[in-house]
Parts: sequence; structure tokens; C-alpha cells
Amino acid sequence: MARWEPGARERLVVAAVDLFTEQGYDDTTVAQIAERAGVTKSTFFRHFPDKRELLVAGQETLSRLLAEGIAESPADATPLQAVAEGLRRVSGAMGPVNREIAPRLKAAVAASVELQERAALKAMSLAAAMTTALIARGVPDATAAVAGELGSLAFSRGFAAWSEGDREDDLADYALPALDELLAAAAAL
Amino acid sequence: MARWEPGARERLVVAAVDLFTEQGYDDTTVAQIAERAGVTKSTFFRHFPDKRELLVAGQETLSRLLAEGIAESPADATPLQAVAEGLRRVSGAMGPVNREIAPRLKAAVAASVELQERAALKAMSLAAAMTTALIARGVPDATAAVAGELGSLAFSRGFAAWSEGDREDDLADYALPALDELLAAAAAL
Repeated sequence: MARWEPGARERLVVAAVDLFTEQGYDDTTVAQIAERAGVTKSTFFRHFPDKRELLVAGQETLSRLLAEGIAESPADATPLQAVAEGLRRVSGAMGPVNREIAPRLKAAVAASVELQERAALKAMSLAAAMTTALIARGVPDATAAVAGELGSLAFSRGFAAWSEGDREDDLADYALPALDELLAAAAAL
Repeated sequence: MARWEPGARERLVVAAVDLFTEQGYDDTTVAQIAERAGVTKSTFFRHFPDKRELLVAGQETLSRLLAEGIAESPADATPLQAVAEGLRRVSGAMGPVNREIAPRLKAAVAASVELQERAALKAMSLAAAMTTALIARGVPDATAAVAGELGSLAFSRGFAAWSEGDREDDLADYALPALDELLAAAAAL
């Protein structure tokens, strides 16, 4: 018996990414994804409105976790400390499935302009979620915008490094050093 | 006789943005845009592959101008000075049409997820174009990424302020102070 048994949602994501990689995004149907995952089409639609949303649905959760981590940081935390708390919160939600499918997901996105557009909007949403959460803490507008962008860059650079590794460490072990590196780079500009 | 007679390309952009605002993006056809602009459909397709591309075609020019300004900066320019030169270069290409249609364009994008996705990808392209141009100058990776993001933020914040004004000043008069403000915010993080 498998030590780790993913649920329907995770199996749908893995099946979809595999099919996108094997036969391309455009030629993959919802029916094929459901079949590969061993579920019905209606189960698919209980989890995702369409095949494109499937690929990025996780990013709405990311935005929420980033914003929550920032909102719940100690009142005396600096903007960057609050962003770091958001990154820690997100890191806790990133499991082996996220890591395993990351390279295949990257290849599927690279091959589809439609997916690139969707991914770009969601990446901007991450930065915007952090910026908004910082402004709600009373951080000035321009400072919040810069901290949100640095947080988004730290997430994407940390995620890229984490998903290429093969150890059992956390995303935070990559995203937090990335944030420090970006902050040092910003200070030296 | 009009003092300023826009060409077919500019008339197509103005007609499209007006129609998107009046009747929505989804309900506007290429034929309607061409008719409003007083040109044939084939003239439309000589300028743009589809109605969506029309809205953001200018951003490819922006990316090119930003990258050229950075590439042609003096060898001893700092990364931020190079980014400022890119912003100056872009500013020179922004005329009254850009300014006039900006509020309507913003409304059309706000009302369409498809346009938001397209716009997001192009905004990321601006940051990526600056980052790539800086790396080509030997700027370290993380520094180039931060400078590219600050440049992109400065462009969008500067553009928003410029397009809301009604004076005859340049985009650079808003984008360069925005860059200074963002740099100061970054230094204070």
C-alpha cells in the first residue's frame, strides 16, 4: 500500500500536467484528464472550472497564505519581516506533489502562450496580494509596492531552486535566503 | 484641417478602445473596429494579428526601447542610471494618443479577464526586458532582477500619473521621480 495516497484534486493536477507534457495543452481535454486521474468529469468540475484554471488554482491559495502571514506578523515587524512570515506560511503548504510536478508544469507553461498569460496574471496577483496586505498594516504605498515585488521575486527564485533540488528541505530554506539576497541587491543599487 | 492626423494604426487603436468601452471587449469584432477606423479588415490584419494583440502591441515597442536605452547607457552608468535611460527612451515614444486613450484602455482591461492576462504577461515582459539588458551589461543576476522590477514599477506608476494629468509634460517627468521614490523605499527596507 502506498505510503502517500493523493486525493482526487492532486491526482487531477498530476494527470493534467502529465498529459500537457505528453501531448500538449491544446490537445488535452477535460475528459482525458479525468480518465487518467481515475475520476469522473463531474468530479473534475467540482474542483476546477476548466483545464486552464487547474494549473494555477494553487496560486489563489498562495496569495491568501502570503497575505495572512503578513497580516498576522507582530505589529513591530518590518515590512520585509512580514513578507518573510508570508513566505514561511506558503512554504508550509508546499508538499511533495508541488515539488514533483514543478518541472513538468514549467515545461507545459513554456509551451503555451495561453498558460503563460494566465501564469503572468497570477504572479502579479502574488505581488499585489503582498502589497495590499502591507498597505493594510500602514506601510507607505511605494514601500509596500517594492516589498511586494521583492517578495514575489523571492518566491519565484526560491521555488525554482527548491523544485530543482532533491532533498527533503522546505521551500522556505530557499525563499528566505533569496529574499535576503534581493534585499542586499536593492540596498546596493 | 486637423493639425494632427493619426495614421491607420493609431486610428485602429483609438477605434478599438472606444468600441471596447462602449460595448465591451467580447462583443467587439475586427470588422467593427476597421469600420469605425475607416479602413478595411485587411488593413487591420496588416497591423495586428487579432483584436487582443492590438491593445498591447505597443508594449513590444516599449520593451525594445527600454532594453536599447539600457544597452546604450555609458559603460560607467549604475544599473539604476541605465534603467532611467531606458525610461527616458520610452518617454520619447509616448505621444498624445497614448495619453488620450489611457483611461479608456484601463477601463477596457479592468472589464476583461482575457485582457488582464494579456496585460500581465506584457508587464512581466517589460521587467524581463530590463533585467536581461542589465545582465548583458554584466550586472549580477539578483541586482538586475531587482532593478528590472523597480523600473517596471516606475514605468507603471509614472504612466498612471502622467495619463491622469492634462499638461504637456513628458512621461519621464513622472517615471523618473517614481524611480527615485521606489529606490528610496527599497533602501529603507
